[in-house]
Amino acid sequence: MMTVYDFTGSGNGYKVCLLMMQLGLPFKRVECDILKGETRTPEFLKKNPNGRIPTLELEDGTFLCESDAILWYLARGTRFVPDDAYDQARALQWMFFEQYDHEPNIAVARFLLEYMPNPERYADRMPGLHERGHEALAVMETHLAGGCDYFAGSRLSIADFALYGYTHVAGEGGFDLDRYPAVQAWIARVASEPGHILITA
Amino acid sequence: MMTVYDFTGSGNGYKVCLLMMQLGLPFKRVECDILKGETRTPEFLKKNPNGRIPTLELEDGTFLCESDAILWYLARGTRFVPDDAYDQARALQWMFFEQYDHEPNIAVARFLLEYMPNPERYADRMPGLHERGHEALAVMETHLAGGCDYFAGSRLSIADFALYGYTHVAGEGGFDLDRYPAVQAWIARVASEPGHILITA
Repeated sequence: MMTVYDFTGSGNGYKVCLLMMQLGLPFKRVECDILKGETRTPEFLKKNPNGRIPTLELEDGTFLCESDAILWYLARGTRFVPDDAYDQARALQWMFFEQYDHEPNIAVARFLLEYMPNPERYADRMPGLHERGHEALAVMETHLAGGCDYFAGSRLSIADFALYGYTHVAGEGGFDLDRYPAVQAWIARVASEPGHILITA
Repeated sequence: MMTVYDFTGSGNGYKVCLLMMQLGLPFKRVECDILKGETRTPEFLKKNPNGRIPTLELEDGTFLCESDAILWYLARGTRFVPDDAYDQARALQWMFFEQYDHEPNIAVARFLLEYMPNPERYADRMPGLHERGHEALAVMETHLAGGCDYFAGSRLSIADFALYGYTHVAGEGGFDLDRYPAVQAWIARVASEPGHILITA
């Protein structure tokens, strides 16, 4: 059985678990408290030299890191990776967008506000995080409002899993999603899939 | 013929051009001066709603964005994408690492120092960029010093193209690569490939 090293509440870990549930892949989940440095111990750094969750341990004892690379690996050959070369590249395009423009702003704002003691210490960082996070949400809104139900091809793919992770909890980072009706409709669409689980489940 | 919208000196654009040269793919290159906002015009935003280079225009007039998704698309089915599922995912793992941990620190430090007027204005940002950039370089060094010549599988792949783009010019961002002998040897290895071009070529 595969093992997911994870931290409760992480959107990056959640998207991996969500995909595995929807694919019916059994897995063991090991909680690593990043606030206590449990991903920076010598033992953990042997699993992932970058010291991050999620980290996937395969049945043969090898490891795979980076949430979106894990999504790719697990979904390869399933309905969640488009067959068409262009659609496949578009899925990856949105996943790189997620890790470069979306997560570093939306997830970080949420982390500082929800997980750190005395979040008021980070008040000076919030305007920049919110400005850039809203830019990312606006790019998503433009895509979805243009008539697309999903991000790559015409059906749910790993790009949607990748973006859903932190978008659906963006409110916890101080982002008002009322500005983005197409994003809200897409969130409801993803959450209505059979096998859906909640981020805290 | 495909068109690459690019900005001279961008490591993200360069890695796409480097791959296309090595694959023998003819392409037209269109310079977009990001310092003059040429990727934020209404016309450019129709090509890429995120307003970034590189953007690839395919022969049928559709567009693909995000440098590492473009690498994937162009290299799919060639020697530069590993066949093995795990090696393929490891290539993507390093590419996501590049966009999350490496580029936002190493490329940004270089951009502020080399491209912005009065770089001393950003002096307060440099220690953080250098600390996190060195952490990324140390992760690369650990991998390569462990006996790997390349980042995914046993030969040159898109993961190497992705990481080479900004690593080989990290010195321009104030990073001393003398600390990383395995990274330096890998840089020489990548640069020795037939069809290599320079970033300013």
